[in-house]
Amino acid sequence: MRVYPDCIPCFLRQALEAARRVTEDKKEQREVLSEVAALIPSLPMDATPVDMGRVIHRTVNAVIGSVDPYREVKKEYNDRALLLYPQLKQRVKNSPDSLLTAIKLSAAGNVIDFGVGAKFDLSQSIEEGLREKLVGFDYALLKERLEQVEEILYLGDNAGEIVLDKIVVEELVSRGKKVTFVVRGKPIINDVTLEDASYVEMDEVANVISSGCDAPGTTLRYCDSAFIETFEKSKLIIAKGHGNFEGLSEEDRPLFFLLKVKCPVVAAELGATVGSIVLRAKARRKM
Amino acid sequence: MRVYPDCIPCFLRQALEAARRVTEDKKEQREVLSEVAALIPSLPMDATPVDMGRVIHRTVNAVIGSVDPYREVKKEYNDRALLLYPQLKQRVKNSPDSLLTAIKLSAAGNVIDFGVGAKFDLSQSIEEGLREKLVGFDYALLKERLEQVEEILYLGDNAGEIVLDKIVVEELVSRGKKVTFVVRGKPIINDVTLEDASYVEMDEVANVISSGCDAPGTTLRYCDSAFIETFEKSKLIIAKGHGNFEGLSEEDRPLFFLLKVKCPVVAAELGATVGSIVLRAKARRKM
Repeated sequence: MRVYPDCIPCFLRQALEAARRVTEDKKEQREVLSEVAALIPSLPMDATPVDMGRVIHRTVNAVIGSVDPYREVKKEYNDRALLLYPQLKQRVKNSPDSLLTAIKLSAAGNVIDFGVGAKFDLSQSIEEGLREKLVGFDYALLKERLEQVEEILYLGDNAGEIVLDKIVVEELVSRGKKVTFVVRGKPIINDVTLEDASYVEMDEVANVISSGCDAPGTTLRYCDSAFIETFEKSKLIIAKGHGNFEGLSEEDRPLFFLLKVKCPVVAAELGATVGSIVLRAKARRKM
Repeated sequence: MRVYPDCIPCFLRQALEAARRVTEDKKEQREVLSEVAALIPSLPMDATPVDMGRVIHRTVNAVIGSVDPYREVKKEYNDRALLLYPQLKQRVKNSPDSLLTAIKLSAAGNVIDFGVGAKFDLSQSIEEGLREKLVGFDYALLKERLEQVEEILYLGDNAGEIVLDKIVVEELVSRGKKVTFVVRGKPIINDVTLEDASYVEMDEVANVISSGCDAPGTTLRYCDSAFIETFEKSKLIIAKGHGNFEGLSEEDRPLFFLLKVKCPVVAAELGATVGSIVLRAKARRKM
């Protein structure tokens, strides 16, 4: 998915929010904004929002001298989600279709996104997600594909959310599947890294690998070759969140995008409404 | 009031919205955004949002080759407000304090602002404004000052809203005051010009003059000398809207700012909440 004109003001808002996590100095905040604004005129027409997010957060971190402005908030949301984990597991267990419930929870958990700039409430998103009348939710197709594969590549998105992904992974494992869970190569916004996967013990249920990507999503040109090889040969890929969708929507692979729609641009691209949860098979995606 | 860091992403959003009124071509929209982004690094620390608005909309118009992207929507809102005029006059007449009711209506009408980017509903804003529990609303002080003057300088803000300003002007005139109503020097966003004042027949109740200012607000450095002379000698000035507040908040004159607060930055500057209507005497303003 390419950058929409609407993404450009949003990039500056993101840059300011990241800067504010580290400095209250308005002059420094203005410096960050100036540096990021200066990147806009040379932004290629075919860049994805993820490519741009990568450059922006590098620029922000360079100006404010930080490598991980979201470190604390990532831990906070991992902890919050871990607290919810036992009751969510119970709800999944008690539901008529435990895999579907887990998938809905995990999509609802994708609300924990410090890139999009909207305020959110995790518990509210979960309740709404569980109640939501699913539209264009390719669950039947996913179930069909799951029958045909033994291994699943699962691309994680955000801290906190990863605890809800773990419930999906556990459902898949209980059905005899092998899951490889993928994290980013470096801290970027509140995206998951190896540290988060280890903190929530994802490595006890899945093979955890890094994509090597230092963007807030997955764009193959920034991934390492070992990941690309795994990606290319995967027969079923579940890609969580905006960033993985934005970076991979044009890849010709057996992808299922699972996310909560949080901005009008992604909503337009998916033909969905802001606030809805979406499971979209690549072939079904509006192109 | 100086530009806040938060204003900078908002400038780009404004530029995109203005561009979209004239062109659907994403490449042209991106060009507008690039041109405006290129202005950010050289933005002086002491610029006001109005100064920046002026440069931005000049840039947008130069790129898209338009002098007045908001022309149609200005007429639309003048017409809508003119339709409401008879019933609003009646409500003012039937109210216990007709001047206060007119002032509240006029502040509520300040919701018609195509600069701030929020969706709005004029009728809803009017009903809310009339019901609003006024906080820090310097009406008693305004009444006291009105006793002491014969002439009032009234700085208009937006098309449509001007019809509600006319009701205030009529109330003032019925109390024996002479009112000079001020419009912008050139079309900028949906701000009022001589054409709008004539269209709603403001010239039948007030002396209508132009400030000469081509910014979306009033900043003395861009006003013509005749206006500045009038402004300097005025004993009571009512200044409508965000743009007049942003450009004049640091002038040491007998100003009353009357507006609907539409963004967090102006809310912070006024110590008010977004969505509230405010009448604030210069001396009472949080500095």
